[in-house]
Amino acid sequence: MRAVWLENQALSFRRDVPEPKPLAGEALVKVHLAGICGTDLELVKGYYPFSGIPGHEFVGEIVLAPDQPDRVGQRVVGEINVSCGSCRHCLAAQPTHCDNRSVLGIKNRNGAFAEYLCLPLNNLKAVPDAISDDAAVFVEPLAAALEIQEQVKIRSTDRVLVLGAGRLGQLIAQTLVPLDCDLTVVARHKNQQALLAGRQIGWIDVQAVRQRAFDIVIEATGSAEGVALAQQAVRPRGTIVLKSTISENENSQINLSALVVDEITLVGSRCGPFAPALHLLESQLVDPTVLITEHYKLSEALKAFEHAAAPGALKIILDTT
Amino acid sequence: MRAVWLENQALSFRRDVPEPKPLAGEALVKVHLAGICGTDLELVKGYYPFSGIPGHEFVGEIVLAPDQPDRVGQRVVGEINVSCGSCRHCLAAQPTHCDNRSVLGIKNRNGAFAEYLCLPLNNLKAVPDAISDDAAVFVEPLAAALEIQEQVKIRSTDRVLVLGAGRLGQLIAQTLVPLDCDLTVVARHKNQQALLAGRQIGWIDVQAVRQRAFDIVIEATGSAEGVALAQQAVRPRGTIVLKSTISENENSQINLSALVVDEITLVGSRCGPFAPALHLLESQLVDPTVLITEHYKLSEALKAFEHAAAPGALKIILDTT
Repeated sequence: MRAVWLENQALSFRRDVPEPKPLAGEALVKVHLAGICGTDLELVKGYYPFSGIPGHEFVGEIVLAPDQPDRVGQRVVGEINVSCGSCRHCLAAQPTHCDNRSVLGIKNRNGAFAEYLCLPLNNLKAVPDAISDDAAVFVEPLAAALEIQEQVKIRSTDRVLVLGAGRLGQLIAQTLVPLDCDLTVVARHKNQQALLAGRQIGWIDVQAVRQRAFDIVIEATGSAEGVALAQQAVRPRGTIVLKSTISENENSQINLSALVVDEITLVGSRCGPFAPALHLLESQLVDPTVLITEHYKLSEALKAFEHAAAPGALKIILDTT
Repeated sequence: MRAVWLENQALSFRRDVPEPKPLAGEALVKVHLAGICGTDLELVKGYYPFSGIPGHEFVGEIVLAPDQPDRVGQRVVGEINVSCGSCRHCLAAQPTHCDNRSVLGIKNRNGAFAEYLCLPLNNLKAVPDAISDDAAVFVEPLAAALEIQEQVKIRSTDRVLVLGAGRLGQLIAQTLVPLDCDLTVVARHKNQQALLAGRQIGWIDVQAVRQRAFDIVIEATGSAEGVALAQQAVRPRGTIVLKSTISENENSQINLSALVVDEITLVGSRCGPFAPALHLLESQLVDPTVLITEHYKLSEALKAFEHAAAPGALKIILDTT
């Protein structure tokens, strides 16, 4: 089959990758669309030693499901963490932290930048008809944005600052609107600012961030500067949510002593619940499709990756059909 | 009066320091005992640019109180943060985070290693007769230990690890015993281990710390190694409480990406509530006096500081009378 292949930090497009075969409990999914995420760009930079087919944001259709043949033809999205079901984290209802997990397109499991992928049937969630493919491909990052609300209580009176108005920051901002909190987004690029303004979300330039002023600061830039700015912007006893991984040599930007003196809470946040993400899309409370910068064919994947890494680019979609 | 003086990171004992005069709302306190804390040792190392009389853990007696003369003679301990009462943090009932605060013996206010000190009457809390001076001098660090319970819900089913069995770690461990959680303390020195064993508190050597095994890890070593170990020991979605300031050049020990991937919560913690600390001492649920390594006269302060910095030393007390 056709697929994007990553090996030794080199990305290639291949036509000769073997089609995957579902194991017990798994389904074969024909991928319709797949989104390029910041993590994919980091994988290429060597953030994690992954070899194989990257890609973990997708919408597709079950074409083979030996254990549940009635699901063939179902349009689905997929939770990316494949858990063992028997380790202490799985038994504690935290399967995304399974000790033995593989992760679609990230760890020990080929991903979505291909014609076909395999995932356990339990991971695959049916997509309601009202949700288009262009919207459904955002379910995984939208779920990750919603994880913030699973972890941190956000009150309508809270002053919330989102750092970064790229792919993830825009989704986070949209999920916060229904909470009616005092929301501000730091946006650098004109197109990011216009998207926010179009949804009546307040944005400011990075120079306008007030110090020690926000109850909750959500870091979605993935940069060391973002982490440092988050610490400046949060009020004493406030909360910083780290929503992006930061490469290790940039860790020194956090000032642990100031964290103690100001009694700041720092919350690491990853992945999230699919059901409320599907609900938000079905009810049209969020509309991620405005974030699509361009569609590319799977065979144009290398060009698509370059575009995704360019300043101001938002979501780049690969059409894998 | 006699006092310890810190200037340009040089400590001296002086007999000619002017006696302080209480401002409106303040009282003059004759200090009985004062404890040497890790922060005092850090001040000498230059952690904070303080000049003047250090010392913030004390018990004493009000000898002059123009605004409340009936309190003269009262035995007291004192909250160390002197707040303005009118900034946004004071108005939000967070006076320990006052923008304009001075801090006894730490910031813009002479401290307790002297015959006399001044504090606002509101900061001074009466000590019940049942509490000895030797116990009362621990109220401030005991309150700091109790701050952890103000910030983090600790359940009886939680596996809690305290890193460090020095002055602060021992106090923290004692305050956790009434919660009946699954408590383990990492203790390096024989005398620390014996103190814990004497109170039926489980201790282990640092090599025996299990990885990703604890729901809550409390870092009380103040070292970069301690922070790194905390991150190894905490389970995914667990909580690390940072109870000690870490000097800035050691900050790189925190791995922010792992914090995100494992969804760890990091909580900075400082100072704490005096009322429950006094209650714990009065009810003898904790006994900090077992931590006293030695008493020194105020004139022997330099020797006392050396002793406090020695490996295995616990609480060193200055007798200021």
